[in-house]
Amino acid sequence: MAQESSQVAPRYLTGDKAGLQEFLAKFDVFLFDCDGVLWSGDHLFPGTVETLELLRNNGKQVVFVTNNSTKSRADYRKKLEGLGIPSTVEEIFSSSYSSSIYISRILQLPENKRKVYVIGETGIEQELRSENVPFIGGTDPAYRRDVTPEDYKKIAAGDESILDPEVGVVLVGLDFHMNYLKMALAYHYIKRGAVFLATNIDSTLPSSGALFPGAGSMSAPLIMMLNKEPIALGKPSQAMMDSIEGKFKFDRSRACMVGDRANTDIRFGLEGKLGGTLGVLTGVSSKEDFVSGDVRPHAYLDKLSDLLGSE
Amino acid sequence: MAQESSQVAPRYLTGDKAGLQEFLAKFDVFLFDCDGVLWSGDHLFPGTVETLELLRNNGKQVVFVTNNSTKSRADYRKKLEGLGIPSTVEEIFSSSYSSSIYISRILQLPENKRKVYVIGETGIEQELRSENVPFIGGTDPAYRRDVTPEDYKKIAAGDESILDPEVGVVLVGLDFHMNYLKMALAYHYIKRGAVFLATNIDSTLPSSGALFPGAGSMSAPLIMMLNKEPIALGKPSQAMMDSIEGKFKFDRSRACMVGDRANTDIRFGLEGKLGGTLGVLTGVSSKEDFVSGDVRPHAYLDKLSDLLGSE
Repeated sequence: MAQESSQVAPRYLTGDKAGLQEFLAKFDVFLFDCDGVLWSGDHLFPGTVETLELLRNNGKQVVFVTNNSTKSRADYRKKLEGLGIPSTVEEIFSSSYSSSIYISRILQLPENKRKVYVIGETGIEQELRSENVPFIGGTDPAYRRDVTPEDYKKIAAGDESILDPEVGVVLVGLDFHMNYLKMALAYHYIKRGAVFLATNIDSTLPSSGALFPGAGSMSAPLIMMLNKEPIALGKPSQAMMDSIEGKFKFDRSRACMVGDRANTDIRFGLEGKLGGTLGVLTGVSSKEDFVSGDVRPHAYLDKLSDLLGSE
Repeated sequence: MAQESSQVAPRYLTGDKAGLQEFLAKFDVFLFDCDGVLWSGDHLFPGTVETLELLRNNGKQVVFVTNNSTKSRADYRKKLEGLGIPSTVEEIFSSSYSSSIYISRILQLPENKRKVYVIGETGIEQELRSENVPFIGGTDPAYRRDVTPEDYKKIAAGDESILDPEVGVVLVGLDFHMNYLKMALAYHYIKRGAVFLATNIDSTLPSSGALFPGAGSMSAPLIMMLNKEPIALGKPSQAMMDSIEGKFKFDRSRACMVGDRANTDIRFGLEGKLGGTLGVLTGVSSKEDFVSGDVRPHAYLDKLSDLLGSE
């Protein structure tokens, strides 16, 4: 992907008032990665609210883009609100939402294969419901149990009491209740022809300052068993960018992706041919990553609130 | 691995009395893969018992080699007995046993890092106990629960109430009760320096004529999160061959591996420099695989009981 990044070193804009003004003037839309940019864990970075206000006051469209699949957009808005960040559901793009959009509007499923078998939490279910996509699995307690000898026989025989013949898609997101039965069912649905989708393939999930299994870890056993990769809907997949564009109808040359991770956020913006990418040093990637890594943003800041220095 | 296989086409011995006699005379020890060779699922192949009797009557040592980690050798002997195959515990080599041997006799663990965190079922626990290896996890019901917000905080903080500081090894086998908490703990133990071992890395487990998640599917999320492969103790890992040799002190040039899978069983014998490898067509690999694949046995039969044709 190196060929897609800026060949010149990114511009360091912290404290550079004229540079900041010039940069901001280039864009009408700002896409924000959230954790590591606006906050870290449960800690809101000082100046986040004021920075978003500055952008909105200057007529900029703000979009929150998250790979978090466990929450719906409504849940995520509540999370933002809880942290003190005003937002609307319309400003939020989660991988659960982009997955639902992809299934309902892009995949052309046969009439009798429209059901989705979900590995994931309530966020995915809410977004599928909002797009009128029928689904099974997910948080249904019937799937939160041990596998039995009877299950093996029924699954092997393709028994319709356990394998719904209308399932045409397996959608795998982060599932805190992942188990052997769910994995076996997902495998057999895909073997029988269902499309293999993943909300996102981040192998880890940051929490409490450490890393935990992410959505990609739910797909990993299936990838190994099937020797097949899923279509992933989260960043840096361009399926997510297409969904965002489909909704906001923005001019990509006038849009800027803001993030803390070079290989997901910045790559997402560069591969999406956005007019700009802005790195911040409050998350995963280091100055070294941004300045001399394979994937470099157009500009970077010590922290997001340094944008306030444009005033 | 192609360079290690016989460059000549394997010899087809079914119905070739002189060829069979000549082949059998070359070996004192026969290592048997089980499922697909002696039986399939719960179905014992006709002639299996008589064939094993023939070998034993001719003074051959018989060893049953299985990657099944959920059973101990004692459990496995019961399974053989249930199928009507006489055997002793001493004739059985399972990946749970070879893992225990590897930990107790080969790994040099520091005094204060001798505990094993187990992902797996009772077979592993029994074999670890038989080698006096201390362990936690496994079938302990305390680990069969949902992850809680408190867990994240404790794990992130390295709290000793949840992360035992004496754990120096993570051993991952097939666990029908795999869950998010177990996966998170395994990840953190390995990040903190524990050795990453897998009983075996078969991605699938055959059952009822279909495939289900195997031990490798338990390691897959960890491999993805850590970007690191485990040391695998099952076939075709030579760690297993070394354990077998350590126990039986056999002359490798006078031993023959019998199996149905070219890329595990036959490879196991070839890489172990055994005097012979014998393929059977009652399991996974086809005649085509044996005759013109990358990994070819020295000889092959339609079915194991064709060895009775030597009389």
